[in-house]
Amino acid sequence: MTLDAVKSLIREIPDFPKKGIDFKDITPVLRDKEAFNYSINMLAKALEGKNIDLIAGSEARGFIFGAPLAYKMGVGFIPVRKPRKLPPTTIKYEYELEYGIDALEMQKDAIQKGQRIIIVDDLLATGGTAYAVLKLIEQLGGIVDSLLFLIELTSLNGRKKLDGYDIISLIKY
Amino acid sequence: MTLDAVKSLIREIPDFPKKGIDFKDITPVLRDKEAFNYSINMLAKALEGKNIDLIAGSEARGFIFGAPLAYKMGVGFIPVRKPRKLPPTTIKYEYELEYGIDALEMQKDAIQKGQRIIIVDDLLATGGTAYAVLKLIEQLGGIVDSLLFLIELTSLNGRKKLDGYDIISLIKY
Repeated sequence: MTLDAVKSLIREIPDFPKKGIDFKDITPVLRDKEAFNYSINMLAKALEGKNIDLIAGSEARGFIFGAPLAYKMGVGFIPVRKPRKLPPTTIKYEYELEYGIDALEMQKDAIQKGQRIIIVDDLLATGGTAYAVLKLIEQLGGIVDSLLFLIELTSLNGRKKLDGYDIISLIKY
Repeated sequence: MTLDAVKSLIREIPDFPKKGIDFKDITPVLRDKEAFNYSINMLAKALEGKNIDLIAGSEARGFIFGAPLAYKMGVGFIPVRKPRKLPPTTIKYEYELEYGIDALEMQKDAIQKGQRIIIVDDLLATGGTAYAVLKLIEQLGGIVDSLLFLIELTSLNGRKKLDGYDIISLIKY
């Protein structure tokens, strides 16, 4: 397995979920046991040598990569969720998405001050979601060690939005 | 670590997300590296000796346990999602939830006929969500080997709803 082979499994779906959006469908990667296993292993390899406490992943595709990565690395997992999904007490951050406006929440006791955290998601587009997650983490006193993505859509300039942070992506478009 | 120790981390949140619902908050389990790792290992142990092709998990908490379990077992992962989240072509099943009515979708090409599948979720309550997932799997020609839950709320009779299927749960209330 190679990252090129993983990339070849990703399907491009035009005009989904809205006209003008070129959706990257990662489900063929997930259902291919070698490709899924290899993707998690490569994400873990990208974090080698880092001293981290937690992986944070946002609802819902961030859970699919973040939770296995937390398991493999032997660290805890923080789910970052849409409003009214996490029980109280939560903090909220509103942000602009590739297609609309949304908000994310994190539990107030999710992170202890000074804990080192990796933000994981399937895809870096405009960076809006990842920026919301890092703002929530920093509001709670956590340290964002780096942000890790399986896929990066370089033309959408997510790195500019996340300027000053360490960003790692495995597959670029 | 023991399952009792994992259970002791689960918080009960009264009247969330609606009055009369006693929500089981599993986030303290997720953020505790030993408890999260042990939970995934115990879920995997419950499947020892089974010959399976895929793990199916429903949005969003089913992803948090299903994806690491698929990774550990070296099988593929099928995300079952809320309407309009998965790109076409999808099939849909409407169902009654512990608190309302909802629908789930699966991609038509998610499963090949005869593949053996484990349905994984954090919690078995009334069984409505799990029932929807198994109906989707069977509509696509998949074989539901068994259903696996970290937590079971026995008083809600989910097993009755799922009668005839092999149901495994690790922590009972």
